Amino acid sequence: MTAETFRTIWQKPDDPSVVQIIDQRVLPHEYRVHDLHTWQDADTAIADMYVRGAPLIGATAAWGLYLAALADPTSAGVRAAGNALLQSRPTAVNLRWAVERIFRLVDASGDDLVERIRRDAQAICDEDVEISRGIGEHGVELLAEISRRKSGETVNVLTHCNAGSLATINYGTATAPVYFAQHRGIDVHVWVDETRPRNQGSQLTAWELARSEVPHTLIVDNAGGHLMQHGLVDIVITGTDRTTRCGDVANKIGTYLKALAARDNDIPFYIALPSTTIDWNTRDGVKEIPIEERDPEEVSHIYGMVDGKTARVRTTEEATPISNFAFDVTPARLVTGLITERGICEASEEGLLELFPEMRDA
Amino acid sequence: MTAETFRTIWQKPDDPSVVQIIDQRVLPHEYRVHDLHTWQDADTAIADMYVRGAPLIGATAAWGLYLAALADPTSAGVRAAGNALLQSRPTAVNLRWAVERIFRLVDASGDDLVERIRRDAQAICDEDVEISRGIGEHGVELLAEISRRKSGETVNVLTHCNAGSLATINYGTATAPVYFAQHRGIDVHVWVDETRPRNQGSQLTAWELARSEVPHTLIVDNAGGHLMQHGLVDIVITGTDRTTRCGDVANKIGTYLKALAARDNDIPFYIALPSTTIDWNTRDGVKEIPIEERDPEEVSHIYGMVDGKTARVRTTEEATPISNFAFDVTPARLVTGLITERGICEASEEGLLELFPEMRDA
Repeated sequence: MTAETFRTIWQKPDDPSVVQIIDQRVLPHEYRVHDLHTWQDADTAIADMYVRGAPLIGATAAWGLYLAALADPTSAGVRAAGNALLQSRPTAVNLRWAVERIFRLVDASGDDLVERIRRDAQAICDEDVEISRGIGEHGVELLAEISRRKSGETVNVLTHCNAGSLATINYGTATAPVYFAQHRGIDVHVWVDETRPRNQGSQLTAWELARSEVPHTLIVDNAGGHLMQHGLVDIVITGTDRTTRCGDVANKIGTYLKALAARDNDIPFYIALPSTTIDWNTRDGVKEIPIEERDPEEVSHIYGMVDGKTARVRTTEEATPISNFAFDVTPARLVTGLITERGICEASEEGLLELFPEMRDA
Repeated sequence: MTAETFRTIWQKPDDPSVVQIIDQRVLPHEYRVHDLHTWQDADTAIADMYVRGAPLIGATAAWGLYLAALADPTSAGVRAAGNALLQSRPTAVNLRWAVERIFRLVDASGDDLVERIRRDAQAICDEDVEISRGIGEHGVELLAEISRRKSGETVNVLTHCNAGSLATINYGTATAPVYFAQHRGIDVHVWVDETRPRNQGSQLTAWELARSEVPHTLIVDNAGGHLMQHGLVDIVITGTDRTTRCGDVANKIGTYLKALAARDNDIPFYIALPSTTIDWNTRDGVKEIPIEERDPEEVSHIYGMVDGKTARVRTTEEATPISNFAFDVTPARLVTGLITERGICEASEEGLLELFPEMRDA
């Protein structure tokens, strides 16, 4: 399987009335393709986290509305399904965006509603792949430059969490420059942070890099500083959930610690992001971005294999009090640059506005 | 159970021919007191990590030689046992120190070898408690000062790994100031880093703080930076495996990342250490201290409870390449101070030599 062919959602080749996804809940222990026959199946897939990652959630909702139209090709039928889908993960911005985009299609005149929705769901996917491709094409230049400086020796990238293909439709965001480097024949290796508590690094990023045959090594989240002190990391690239107008970056908890270590060791620290995740209305990320606290069981329990079967294991004493903040904010001063689909810029209001001048007065 | 009464090794109250330890392998899921009847039992306890932590390993070896003398109260018998014990964990400095101390006793004249060794094993334990007490008495002043500044509001301490009672005989090193604060009635709360990959935080530190009724909250290693950014940490205190003459500190992997976050947020970062762990012959910790790489299965597998039974679970794909560095080095420039049994000093050669002037020409 190469990065080119590995998408996370698609129509079943021999049956276009079925949409297929990878059941990410059971990765990496099982590769299970899951069929969506109805919009209710899509609803479950989003709510129960068969799929995760903002772009993929949006795409799954759009394909869900295609399935809804197949069953009931009326404006009312699609709208009812869409309103229900919006409840599956109420805080997912891309979910709302995708549903509203399909709603506009329903309102427009024209025949064959099913085919129009199918084409738009496909377009949502293709556009997301184009965004990842843009990030990859700009980001790969950073890796190419390091490779030249090292006379072709291995370029060591460190990443945190999964901002990979599995979070998008293809290529991912933080991983896109890596996949593009591999295609160019650049010798690249990825240090994969385990990413406690949900282990997206060890269970998703390591899985997808293996599928695409990108050399990688799993490390605990504690290890990055040591590796950087000893010259074993050339660049850090992570994704982000939200970037402020001034370049502060909210991402998976622990990203800030890696940014500090990168700065202390003069290692470039980049954030890869689709411009849709820039929040032009916030400035100070630490002060303004609310940080979600999640279920303590994400910390106390872990999913794995025992005797050839999957099991959920409690690793702590039952009574242990636990706090589980899901994200942290890396201040712009620690970010070397932002890799967007339009290019790379400084993590600052001026830097962002040079790439997105249309937001100057927004 | 209070901190006062909770020791990690003792003679069985109603049978002085038996030495008892806590089987730390099954914590926190089970509290199992394990009987040592023979020096071979002590050997197994050390080799199979029923006990860990340098001071406790040394004490277990000394008590093992008491058991050896009970079985064969001759110089030859004790020496044979001691030489075997030295192989149980060849790199443990305190193990060699304790065995050699007992050997000197064997060589000296006097009667009742068994009672002489028993008294010395007890002395080794009592001396270690005195070291922890010294660290506690000096370190508690830092917490008292913060408490005063906060007008008695909760003092939030963050710690990494287990430098607690369970690693020593009582009080621990990093935890000693906390236990002493509790005794003084200072309102103290500990953020406990999970400490991947071996989870000494979630499985040992959380356990012992609970036993001593010290308020605490378990967090993933990724969370500390976020807590510090938001004023939720007043001081960081960790232990150390080795401190250089210039104040660089080797400790559990990930300590360096917490030191960086503390510095970035102007939070005091202290290391608690018995002076026996100062290596007066090294200066630059990053360059000179070799960092052990351990079994990748420590990362890929985790120990926990499934359906009321303990189980070892694999959390990664079987083929995932893993790197597992056990320690990192925190440069002295990031360390606010060193808490020793003699007092608190700056993390520098001058600071250390003021407390230990006898090492000036060493």
